[in-house]
Parts: sequence; structure tokens; C-alpha cells
Amino acid sequence: MIKAGIIGATGYAGNELVRLLMGHKEVEIKWYGSRSYIDQKYAEVYQNMFEIVDDVCMDDNMEALAEQVDVIFTATPQGFLAGVLNEGLLEKTKIIDLSADFRIKDVAVYEKWYKIEHKSPQFIGEAVYGLCEVNRDKVKNARLVANPGCYTTCSILTAYPLVKEGLIDPDTLIIDAKSGTSGAGRGAKLPNLFCEVNENMKAYGVTSHRHTPEIEEQLGYAAGRPVVVNFTPHLVPMNRGILATEYATLTKKADGSLPSYEEIKAAYDKYYAKEKFVRVLPKDACPETKWVEGSNYVDIGFKIDERTGRIVMMGALDNLVKGAAGQAVQNMNLLFGFDEAEGLCLVPMFP
Amino acid sequence: MIKAGIIGATGYAGNELVRLLMGHKEVEIKWYGSRSYIDQKYAEVYQNMFEIVDDVCMDDNMEALAEQVDVIFTATPQGFLAGVLNEGLLEKTKIIDLSADFRIKDVAVYEKWYKIEHKSPQFIGEAVYGLCEVNRDKVKNARLVANPGCYTTCSILTAYPLVKEGLIDPDTLIIDAKSGTSGAGRGAKLPNLFCEVNENMKAYGVTSHRHTPEIEEQLGYAAGRPVVVNFTPHLVPMNRGILATEYATLTKKADGSLPSYEEIKAAYDKYYAKEKFVRVLPKDACPETKWVEGSNYVDIGFKIDERTGRIVMMGALDNLVKGAAGQAVQNMNLLFGFDEAEGLCLVPMFP
Amino acid sequence: MIKAGIIGATGYAGNELVRLLMGHKEVEIKWYGSRSYIDQKYAEVYQNMFEIVDDVCMDDNMEALAEQVDVIFTATPQGFLAGVLNEGLLEKTKIIDLSADFRIKDVAVYEKWYKIEHKSPQFIGEAVYGLCEVNRDKVKNARLVANPGCYTTCSILTAYPLVKEGLIDPDTLIIDAKSGTSGAGRGAKLPNLFCEVNENMKAYGVTSHRHTPEIEEQLGYAAGRPVVVNFTPHLVPMNRGILATEYATLTKKADGSLPSYEEIKAAYDKYYAKEKFVRVLPKDACPETKWVEGSNYVDIGFKIDERTGRIVMMGALDNLVKGAAGQAVQNMNLLFGFDEAEGLCLVPMFP
Amino acid sequence: MIKAGIIGATGYAGNELVRLLMGHKEVEIKWYGSRSYIDQKYAEVYQNMFEIVDDVCMDDNMEALAEQVDVIFTATPQGFLAGVLNEGLLEKTKIIDLSADFRIKDVAVYEKWYKIEHKSPQFIGEAVYGLCEVNRDKVKNARLVANPGCYTTCSILTAYPLVKEGLIDPDTLIIDAKSGTSGAGRGAKLPNLFCEVNENMKAYGVTSHRHTPEIEEQLGYAAGRPVVVNFTPHLVPMNRGILATEYATLTKKADGSLPSYEEIKAAYDKYYAKEKFVRVLPKDACPETKWVEGSNYVDIGFKIDERTGRIVMMGALDNLVKGAAGQAVQNMNLLFGFDEAEGLCLVPMFP
Repeated sequence: MIKAGIIGATGYAGNELVRLLMGHKEVEIKWYGSRSYIDQKYAEVYQNMFEIVDDVCMDDNMEALAEQVDVIFTATPQGFLAGVLNEGLLEKTKIIDLSADFRIKDVAVYEKWYKIEHKSPQFIGEAVYGLCEVNRDKVKNARLVANPGCYTTCSILTAYPLVKEGLIDPDTLIIDAKSGTSGAGRGAKLPNLFCEVNENMKAYGVTSHRHTPEIEEQLGYAAGRPVVVNFTPHLVPMNRGILATEYATLTKKADGSLPSYEEIKAAYDKYYAKEKFVRVLPKDACPETKWVEGSNYVDIGFKIDERTGRIVMMGALDNLVKGAAGQAVQNMNLLFGFDEAEGLCLVPMFP
Repeated sequence: MIKAGIIGATGYAGNELVRLLMGHKEVEIKWYGSRSYIDQKYAEVYQNMFEIVDDVCMDDNMEALAEQVDVIFTATPQGFLAGVLNEGLLEKTKIIDLSADFRIKDVAVYEKWYKIEHKSPQFIGEAVYGLCEVNRDKVKNARLVANPGCYTTCSILTAYPLVKEGLIDPDTLIIDAKSGTSGAGRGAKLPNLFCEVNENMKAYGVTSHRHTPEIEEQLGYAAGRPVVVNFTPHLVPMNRGILATEYATLTKKADGSLPSYEEIKAAYDKYYAKEKFVRVLPKDACPETKWVEGSNYVDIGFKIDERTGRIVMMGALDNLVKGAAGQAVQNMNLLFGFDEAEGLCLVPMFP
Repeated sequence: MIKAGIIGATGYAGNELVRLLMGHKEVEIKWYGSRSYIDQKYAEVYQNMFEIVDDVCMDDNMEALAEQVDVIFTATPQGFLAGVLNEGLLEKTKIIDLSADFRIKDVAVYEKWYKIEHKSPQFIGEAVYGLCEVNRDKVKNARLVANPGCYTTCSILTAYPLVKEGLIDPDTLIIDAKSGTSGAGRGAKLPNLFCEVNENMKAYGVTSHRHTPEIEEQLGYAAGRPVVVNFTPHLVPMNRGILATEYATLTKKADGSLPSYEEIKAAYDKYYAKEKFVRVLPKDACPETKWVEGSNYVDIGFKIDERTGRIVMMGALDNLVKGAAGQAVQNMNLLFGFDEAEGLCLVPMFP
Repeated sequence: MIKAGIIGATGYAGNELVRLLMGHKEVEIKWYGSRSYIDQKYAEVYQNMFEIVDDVCMDDNMEALAEQVDVIFTATPQGFLAGVLNEGLLEKTKIIDLSADFRIKDVAVYEKWYKIEHKSPQFIGEAVYGLCEVNRDKVKNARLVANPGCYTTCSILTAYPLVKEGLIDPDTLIIDAKSGTSGAGRGAKLPNLFCEVNENMKAYGVTSHRHTPEIEEQLGYAAGRPVVVNFTPHLVPMNRGILATEYATLTKKADGSLPSYEEIKAAYDKYYAKEKFVRVLPKDACPETKWVEGSNYVDIGFKIDERTGRIVMMGALDNLVKGAAGQAVQNMNLLFGFDEAEGLCLVPMFP
């Protein structure tokens, strides 16, 4: 039984972490950190936790917290962890950071896209990008895990095998992603009001969304060379779920023909057949966000377009689970040698 | 480890039963009955179950099924179980019926409201009304459990302690209930289309909804005399959740004053303080369906109105869990002597 | 052609006023007042108005505005108009106030429920409560119209004929109202975020909502004596629409029998048969908010419950049209002698 | 004053036609054709029309209808009009067909994508593709107008100026489109149930949607050569609205640089500056479906991505107005020499 602390426990991702850790046999939450609600009962902020969580919210004192727990989850705004991290903390506790602070290896790229100075560049090298299916072995020995973004987890896993196997030209990759509104967080902002989102659909952050360089860096590793993509997020009137529709030109074979369905399928199976949380759907089935809601699954489907020589890949996940808290727990399981699926055997809820 | 069969496994309640039983340590599902999808893979009908359930759908042959399992859940239309039930079946297996066939003791009342002839009136007496918090002991020894309706579970539990303790006049009881659309089932009917329900709100079944006599019968037992109520259901543009807002005139005390908050609260606590799945909220907190979504909880709140001498009681539950599949599992736990909460420790999912 | 100014033009009701006045032949908007967006283009705040409205937002200087226009709509928070009103203003321009400042004749009641001091009680007597169907003649000669609240318009019109004709006992009246979220305004508040409202249903303001005394005062006039009711508002995950479900005990006739369907229908027809914007639905039809969306209609239906001796009345309207901006335009039409339906012949939009 | 008949008046597009024609000064509806609801009151099928439309539904007898009206709208399934069309009909009345029967000039392409035999190929040549902004002059003299599809109107208008001016390479065009659910029609089908659509997002018809050849044919005319595109539709949990996000590689200028924002903007302005119903948004503004809801507008925005050399174009419209009934009315206005905007000056409704 290990002890865990959460900084940012009253955001949507923080609340989801609490939900998941409540069902985890090996963890006990000792600290519900929330600067906004200090000393208030957690179950007053999240009434779903009434009679489940009795604790009050604590501050975000990482030094004090590190003395008490084996792992800290930071579900905090950009810059928080980079602003307080030090060697002493990492000697006392493991840290799983749900923010973007340590996801990008190139600090100049980070600072350009996030428009803030990185306060702890010395730890970037050590941080492991916690995309479990790709970096499993590295995560096991990490002290600091950079938990991937929601869009990025979906975007990367959907294309990864085909990039890695050279079946598509990564320079042609276009990612059109659609997200539920919980991805925008619990801040009281006009664009996130019910009446602004409901019965509405829009793109945002066009050509400038911060998850772009994260996707490019990781797919660049898979491709073996730098990759530049178009990534366009959209806001959808639903609470949870991300659907990424991805387009790329297929690499022709020596005889000029396109790869077959079976060849593409084999590439996906090579990487995912043994992965519990990645489900490559049967031929012609399309992922739907509702079919993974509440679970840690990523569902993937694809369709070859002979007419244009392109492939349309589709991936779906729950942005708060596999896209945030679920993957964080999966990383924790790897860090501490628990069964990787412990606490994550969640059957998707439908409808 | 017991074996279970489900008839009607491809309805929404059936699918929810599968979700819950997948997380139950003591049960194995042996039969996914679905007349509409015989021989089709269950996970093709419900893609959330891909790589979780490998079985194909079976027919609704209760005789064959009874040979193989310890318990049968019938999540079927009205009249199905009454049409096939016989002594032999009950000797071989326990049955938990999610339909209304055996909920109402007075067969004439059943036939009047449901407008069908009851084919097995001889088993009505034996059937136990499976409202666990009220009939726990009777359920333990039953062979046939009539699992309560979704509206009724919410409506009854919200008012039960006050009726039982004589704190309200049951003849003044008005129940205004609002339900998500999954309660209407998965049938392809025009009124349940997205565009007909979304951005819309309506009452239906006004003065004639079939859950009315079920509520009246059970509250009549609590009151010690026949009770007649107004029950009005409404359709709400959401998937899950029932909210019942109930109005009744408070019984004045000998000195002509109204019962105090503390007295009302004490009545609720008398019946529910030890109940795991009934949460009586703190003073002034109102139940919201989202706070119980995906869980087996019923949340209850109330407010005394000194001006009118009435009390406003509010109850919220997830119609597919405590209102259907969750309560069915709770009944199964009672029937087989399992921990009553086994498989049901589900933290509500928010948002 | 008259000139109009709007204070509070960037709230949802203000924007709806702009939409309606754009289609009105006799009015030109000269002033888009919005303290929050001064000097910003109106069409940047409301992109639906791009290439339709070219003006920039102005301040809320009523004195300056009164010099320029024939009518001012104040779609402002409680207390604004009462804080600035004076005789000089009313000599220069007519005012239609969409706030509650002048709706309630008893200033003590206003101050008790709204918890603010009324700054202009001297104008309360003169103000006409702008429920057109009830106060049409008084409105025609008014200088100051108190435009009714959204819940109140729906609640009162649904019950009015039966109260007026003594067909129900007003002391038994219980109003269970459900509203779309635009009624909560465009303020960036946590409870109005998409993820908090979507897939959720709750009551709020139980026994304490400010529309209660407004309903009671108006129904009191109809009853000829003070009336006290239970009014419970609920928040529904939709943008627009209010549905009021109202319960009351029917007055028995001399022979002890209940009024018949025809007698009730006749009472509704007596008051509404000639009303363009009140539609009493055919027998057994229930109002649905979607059927009136975008229009100035109130749809009304009812059902007698012989078992309980009560009637269930239902009314539906679009809270931003008949519940706010539409009724304000209807009042303006009365004030200036235009066709009462000018600008309001809006066919409800479905779906 | 002309007379109009509608075949398919009880579909969503048919009902929208009724809504729009009710506000049109020059048209009277004489025939509400609906095979499913013959002899039933139209206002019973669409309760929004209560006290607005008194007529009963008629059959789909085009011969009888043609004797009575000046224009027929066929809002019918594929194949209906092609199955009954003849020279005699076109001599008596003008026809605006909202189905796909006469949209595609190449009958082989039609039969391949629609998988039905075309019964009236002899009229394909004469039919005018009713995309008003592109084919205005041709429409004016037509007898038979093929009203464009909802996705196609949005997809084509968003890219048209850039294809026409050679600013993008049409072979690189990828159209990722998202639609509200009313586009799926009012048929009672499982995938369109509220609980299947709500809180869900999916692609469908991937590489095979029937609007693809329609888009390709029209953009081929603009490009001056055949064009093949990727078009992927998605279902969004909202009633109305289509958002098309389109990606294409910009044509480099002689010096190897990309076209500037101003050059792209100038191309859009060249074609749309005088178009009442196409709004090219200010720099950096993104279209949102809600900002055009209920109106005949198409809103267009774009963003150049210097990093990838691509442009991201976005277009939004209301699928039932500009994507169906509104454009049909616009075509009718052209056919009969009315003001092109008559009946279509609809301010978008927000929220």
C-alpha cells in the first residue's frame, strides 16, 4: 500500500484521479491539494464524493507533501511544477506531472509554444514521457513522469504504428481532433458556459495549439526524423471524449500499389495486439467516443481510400481517463511494479 | 462463484447489468439472451464490450437457461416472465425480474394499468418486491424478486421515512419526476430520436404512468393505509438520471407547529443512516443527477417551507444503476449471501 | 419609425431583443448599451450579428440615451433602473424594464426577497406589470412597464383562467418549473459551465426563488385574495425553454363532482381564444418547449386527475422570447399603438 | 403571389421549408405532401405549427399537384423524383428537388455512389445545380433545380474561391465535416436515438459518403479539371449545424513564397464580397455553427500555416437552412424573379 498526494485535486482531472484511486487496491490518498478550496471539505466541492471522501482540501506545499507520500500527482497549470521542482523532492517521492512542463525535450520549443520561461530545464532530460504503450520500460525506472496530453495521447497512438513502420508519409499527416468540453477545465470562463458550447461546434487554436509540438516530437522519434503536422482541435458539446480523425498518404510499395488492409492491420497488431488498453477494432468499425467513456481504452479504426491513396485513421478515448488520470494511474502502476491494469479495469459506460 | 444468465441483455438495462457483473467477484455470466440479435456477437451490438465479452447472443429459452445458471435476470418487456414462469423454473434457479410483472400484489390493479392479462397470478404472492432498503430480510429468502422500477425506487425512497413516521400527509403527496432518456429503452421510436429529445422538455403519461400504482402500493404499506398520489414523469435531454421533486403537507405537531429540520432529518437518519447506498445530503444541499451518475447511490435532500406548511423532498439516482441493474445486483447479493455492496462500490463519475 | 435604446444589450435577453427588433418594421435601434464591452463592436461580442449590426457598444448613461430615443429597454441586473430612474427620464422616453425592479407592488416584499433596498419606490405605483394578456389596456397608457419574469410569465398564464374563474383552490397550487440554462445569464460562473449543466438535472432556489412573490402577487389579483404557492425552479441541460408543471385541487361543484374537461377548456378559451400568443393545445396534447422555441408562443395543456381530484396544468414558452425579449417587444407594440404582433410572427423552429 | 407544393413536407427539411415559406411574402403553400401522414393534420405531426397551419397532409401525386401550383419542392428520398419526372410536369410547374437525383451530371457516377438505377437520365442535362452563389444566372432560367446537399454546400463554398483562383492544389484537399443530427432525417433508426448520439462523436461513411462525388464534380468545374478529395462526415450531438474544416496545400508563388493573408482574403472577397449570405469573417475569427443557426448564412474563416505550407479553411452553416430549405427558397426567389433574400432575412438565433 503506497501513499499518494494530488496537487490540483479539484480540477476535472484531479477529481477523476480521485475516482480511479478510490478503486485501486494499492493506493491511499493522503493529500487533496487545492489552492482554491483550502480547508473546505473535498466532498463539498465535488458532491459525488459525499460519504466517500471525508478529507478537507490542503494547500500546494510540495515540500511538506513529499515528506508524507510515495507519489505526487500534479494536475496543475503549466509552469507550476517547473517552478517548484528540485532534487530534494525527487529524492523523497516520485512525481507524475499531468501538466505539459516536462513533456517536450526541446526547451526552446516549449517556451515558444507555451509562451512562458521554463524554470527547471535541468530536469527535462531525466523526465520520461509517460505514453505507456511506447515508453513502458523507461517509465518503470523514472523518478519524474511527464504524463502526455489528452489530444496527444489520442493523436499519437492512432498513427504510431504506421509512422514507425514507414507505411505512411508523416509529412502528409493531418490530424483533425474533436474534444468534449471537460478538456477545457473547470475554470469559470465565458466560452465554456453551457449556452456557448451546447448546440455549437467550432475549431480553435488553429495552427497554434500547444499539443502540436508534443505530437511532432513523439512522432518524430517514431519516424526517425523531424515531423511537422497539421493539428486542429475542435470543441464538441459533450462532457468527455476525444475523437481524432487523421489523414496521411500511404507509402506505395515497390510495385506502385498501396499497402493492403491486412498489411496495415498487421502493423497495428504488431504494436497493440498485446496492449490491454488499445483496441484495434474489426474491419470497417469506426471508433465512437461513447464506447470508451469512463474507461482507459483507446479504440482505433482505419479505412484505406484507394481513390486518393490516403488512409483515414480514427482514434477515440476518454480525455479524463486514458487522456489524463487513467494514464497517470497506469504510469504509477509501472513506477511501483503493480499490475499495469490495477484500478483501470473499467468497463466503458453506455449510454 | 455463481453463474448468471440475462434475458434481454441487449437493452440498456441489460448492458448495464453486464457492465456491473463484469466487476463482480462472485458471478460469471453464462448467457446473453437477446431475441433480436441471436447468434450475433454481443460486442458487435455493444461495442463498449469489445475485447471484454466474447460471447454471442442467445435466445430467451428460460427452460434451457435454468439448467445452467444459479440466477436469471429478466430485463424484458412486460408480460414475458409472467408468460413463461412455472414452478420448475423456480426450483432450479432464482429469478430477478426487472420488468413490472411481479411488482404489484393486486392483479386487478396490474391489469388495469398495464392493459394486459397477467398469465401467472399464482406467483405474485411469493414474489418479493426488491426494494432492498425496505425489504432486505424478505429478499434474502426469496426465489423470485420483483426488481422495482426506476421512477418508483427514486420516488419511494425519497418519501418513505416521512410517510412511515407520519410526518407528512400521504394524501397530499405530489411527485414531479424527471428522467434521462435511457429510461425509454433502446427501441427505434420517433419520440426517442436525438432531434426530438435534445433541447426539449416535456411531461408524458400525465395521470396515467404505470409506475403510479407501484408507488402507491409501497407507500400504502408504509402509511398503513391506501395512498393515492399524483405522479408526473418528464423526459429530459440527458442519457441517465432521475430527479424526483416531491411535495407534501407536513403533519403539524400537537402545538400546531411544523416539524423542525432536525426532526425531519432524524426521521431520514433513522432509516438511512446505516444504508450504504442512500445518502441524505447536508442541510440545504440539493441532489443533482450528475453527482450519482454511474453509481448505485440515491441522494436525498429536503427543504421545509414554513410559508405553505409543505416540505419539498428531492431524490436523485442513476436510472440504469440503482433504478435497474444496480439494484438487481444488490438483490442478487442479498439472495446469495454476498456482501450487499459487492460489485457496487462505484464512485459516481463527474463530469 | 421609432428609435430604441437597449441597456444591457450584451446579455442573452439583450441579444434576443436585438434579433427581434431587427425584424420589426417600426423600430430602429440607436444604442447598444453594455458596460462590459464599451467601444467594442457589438458583432464581435455576438458574432451572429456580423454584417447585420455595425454599431459599437455604448455605456449605460440613461440621461444621454433618453435624449435620443423613444423607448429604452433595460435588460439589466436588479437595482439598476431603480437606482437611476427619475421623472425627467419618464418625461422624455418610455421605459420597458426587463429586471424585477418594478414588478412587485409591495416594496417590503421586494426588499425581503431581493435583499436590496429599493431606490425608487415612488415609481412602483405607476409602473404597469407588462403581462400583456392580462394587463393589455393598462400597458397602452403606461410610461414605465415592468416586463414580467420568464418563470412568472409561464407560471401565471398557465394557471390564470382557472384561478380567476375559481375552478381551482389557489392555496393548493404547486408549481414545478424547469428552465433551460440561458435563464441563468451570460455571466462566467462555475455552476453554468457546460460540464456542470450537461447531463445533469437539479432543483435550485427551493422555497426561496425570487419569482415566487411575483407569481403570488399576480395570482392574488386573479383570486381576489392573497395567495401563497410552492414554486420550485429546476435547471435543465438545454439552452432555451421553460416548462411549468402545475398542480392544484379542483373546486368541486355543488353536487360534489369535479369540473369536466369541457368546463376547464371553456375557462381557458374565455381568456385565450382570441390571444395570438397563447395556444391552448388539443385534448391530451402536452406542451413541449421545443415546439415554441424561438417564438413568442405560450403553449398550454392540462389533464384532470379524477383519482386525486387535482388538475395538472402544463405551460411551455421560450424564456428569451415570451419570457423576456418577445414580451418586451409586445409591450412596446402596445405602448406605441403598433400591431401587437408586429415583429413577433415567428414560427417556432424545429428541431 | 405564387402557389407552392411540398412533397415530403413532414421530414425535417420539409418542416423547415414550411417555416421559411410562412415568412415569405410572395408564396402560399397549397399542398403538404406526406405519404406517411396522409389525411392527418400537419400541425399534429409538427406541433410547432399549431394554429399556424390548418391543412391536412396530402399524398405525393405529382401530376395532380402540378395542376395547382407554380413550384414544387421535392424533399424526398433518392430516386423519387427521377421515378416520376416527365416533360408534362416540367411544362406545368417548376421543380426544386432537395434530393440528389439531379445533382450529378455523370449518371454512371450517380449510380455507382447511390447504388440505384437513375430512372430519368434524360433530364440530367437540363437540371441546374442550384448553388446560388456559383450558378445564379443559370438558375434564373431553369425549369428543374437540383438543390445542393448540406455537406456539399458547406464544403464547396468554403474552398471555391481558392480552387477557382488556383491558390490551392485541389488534389491535396481534405474535408473533415461535422454535422448535427437533423441531417440524418426523421426516420426512427437506432443510430439516431438520443442515447446513441448524445455524449458521443463518430465518423461515418468514411471514404464512401455520397456527397463526395457532388463535391468533386463542382470543384472540378472550378479547377478546370477532375478533382478527387477526401471527405469524411462526422455526427455531432447537436440538432443543427455543419462545420467543415478543410485542409489544402497552398500554391507557392513564383518566388517560392506562400500567398499572404491579404491575397487569400482578396480571393474570398472577389467572389463573396457582394454575397448577402456568405460572410467571410474577420482575420483570426473562426466560424461556429451556433452563430448561423436558423439563418441562411455561411460563415467562412481561414488560417495559413506557414510551417506546413497548408491553409486551414473553415465553413459553417445551418444544414436545414442554407444546407437545404433556405437554399431552396433562395433558388425559388431566383426562378421567379423575387428579391433573392425575400423570406431569408433571418437573424441567427443565439444561444
